[in-house]
Amino acid sequence: MVDVVLSLDQLHALAVNVLTSNGLGAPHAQAMAKMLVAGQRDDCQSHGVWRLIGCVKTLRSGKLNLDAKPSVQDISPALVKVDAQYGFSPLAFELGSQMLVEKAKRTGIAALAINNCFHFSALWPEIEVLTDQGISALAMVPSHSCVAPAGGTKPLFGTNPIAFGWPRPDGMPFVFDMATSRIARGDIELHQRSGSKIPNDWAIDEDGQPTDDPERALKGAMLTFGGYKGSALSAMVELLAGPLIGDMLSRKSLEFDDGAGVAPCHGELIIAFNPSLFGGTDFVENSHRAEALFAGIVDQGARLPSQRRFEARKRSVEHGVALPAKLHADLLNLIET
Amino acid sequence: MVDVVLSLDQLHALAVNVLTSNGLGAPHAQAMAKMLVAGQRDDCQSHGVWRLIGCVKTLRSGKLNLDAKPSVQDISPALVKVDAQYGFSPLAFELGSQMLVEKAKRTGIAALAINNCFHFSALWPEIEVLTDQGISALAMVPSHSCVAPAGGTKPLFGTNPIAFGWPRPDGMPFVFDMATSRIARGDIELHQRSGSKIPNDWAIDEDGQPTDDPERALKGAMLTFGGYKGSALSAMVELLAGPLIGDMLSRKSLEFDDGAGVAPCHGELIIAFNPSLFGGTDFVENSHRAEALFAGIVDQGARLPSQRRFEARKRSVEHGVALPAKLHADLLNLIET
Repeated sequence: MVDVVLSLDQLHALAVNVLTSNGLGAPHAQAMAKMLVAGQRDDCQSHGVWRLIGCVKTLRSGKLNLDAKPSVQDISPALVKVDAQYGFSPLAFELGSQMLVEKAKRTGIAALAINNCFHFSALWPEIEVLTDQGISALAMVPSHSCVAPAGGTKPLFGTNPIAFGWPRPDGMPFVFDMATSRIARGDIELHQRSGSKIPNDWAIDEDGQPTDDPERALKGAMLTFGGYKGSALSAMVELLAGPLIGDMLSRKSLEFDDGAGVAPCHGELIIAFNPSLFGGTDFVENSHRAEALFAGIVDQGARLPSQRRFEARKRSVEHGVALPAKLHADLLNLIET
Repeated sequence: MVDVVLSLDQLHALAVNVLTSNGLGAPHAQAMAKMLVAGQRDDCQSHGVWRLIGCVKTLRSGKLNLDAKPSVQDISPALVKVDAQYGFSPLAFELGSQMLVEKAKRTGIAALAINNCFHFSALWPEIEVLTDQGISALAMVPSHSCVAPAGGTKPLFGTNPIAFGWPRPDGMPFVFDMATSRIARGDIELHQRSGSKIPNDWAIDEDGQPTDDPERALKGAMLTFGGYKGSALSAMVELLAGPLIGDMLSRKSLEFDDGAGVAPCHGELIIAFNPSLFGGTDFVENSHRAEALFAGIVDQGARLPSQRRFEARKRSVEHGVALPAKLHADLLNLIET
């Protein structure tokens, strides 16, 4: 089968159609579609429109609040909390991030805590919303328990991504978004879907042994990246985006799911930094310092994170995106008529 | 030669004597000694009293302000900056951390940026000062350029440690303190000092090839932990504890050193989180959530970070610390009479 090429607008309309026809309120559908199309546009397949399949499963599960009205609470000069009311996260982020930026501009550092959200997206689109406004940001979320701590054999942590961004005056921001597991869970699921093996250092099976079988890996436990150091960072994500903000650990989130296999429900923490307040009067010099770091990376032939995404974005904006025909057909089949 | 056993008070007095006899002002000497003795006490050799040798080299270099009076600036409800005035960092931290805790208690999140400090200590003693006051904290510093970015071969980053702590109501806090390099530079220096080989995945030589020779590793470049993910985190440390707060990158810090080989001069960022404000009314439930995470780690036979340190601390408080006779003699020789 040949690929189906769609413009970004066409893909957005398709995603909105899939979501609203399955009962999701329009503002949520718009915010979700924006996020998923951004993933597809940047050739970030594991967070692209393929996720609509899981979104629809979540919508049909009855667990999600289809018309949730996120409620924004102004806690302190540096802290905003949003209760997502058991809806999807992107709309809650859109609403809360406005106040987050205002606070960071005034106080230098500020935090946005989102509670009770079903989280189903990459973090870098959120980070880029902030870097676009001159704000540096650090974000983290737990997920469903599927990763063993270093030295252990049983799932405890989620894939627990950490994302960070730094605004650059000219061109694209410095952005990374990485699971603290060896690999994103979506990558194992894509191998499962295509029937291919995985490298045997990604995960262990139910008996705690290395495995190259995506099925057994998904039943066993994934590993953290970088051994005990990645494991420590994963624990930090659990604590800061869980108990700190009054929300669930990945293990509790999985219990809450109760076998439904839908998007994980949990909290999210985003910390925003305002370089112009932090750095005092030396904003231009500090900006040069940051650019010197990036030059020091690329001048020795190493890559900045997200470069492949940005290149894909340029192509997609110009030429649209090519969906495998089977995926396109699967998405059309999700539309309720 | 047999070891020399000293009580913690005796070791503290020795450290103060070494430092003040080399011209360091008394408040700085007390703060530095506290930090170095804490390292020795916790059997964290690479940050123990062995570092007095480097401290004295720094004191004698003429680069350090021996009687620096750190100046504390109250920037916003959530931000405090301390200009260490080119003195050692511990006294600047002691002064700034008081305001940091007050701010975090009121606003939920707050940051302390320290500028122009010579930094020569582990981060966990600072983290523990904050967890002792019920505050969770994340700290990071650049250092001297000695680590290659993933995909590169030349030193750019410092060892760029990240440390994190979470207060626990009963017993010791959850604390980790890790270099974003494979290993602390001090560990390679200890191998150099003892004439032993290093594992060949710690560093590359001047030609970009793996090496087991500590000399060549120190002349070449260390590697980050966890490949490109550790490299991304190391870049984040450079940005947040450098350009964000108006201070030097690790590469500039090395240039500033200008071959003197003294303690790195740079900035430091500490972010403080107040769980009782962030978590709202559910402080007790949130504390139980965190404890459930720790139980989930230890119940499957994995270890919490810092456990070995805490065990060593208990032994040292009871029995004192044993210094190799050669190190003890070297330290005595540092005392100027």
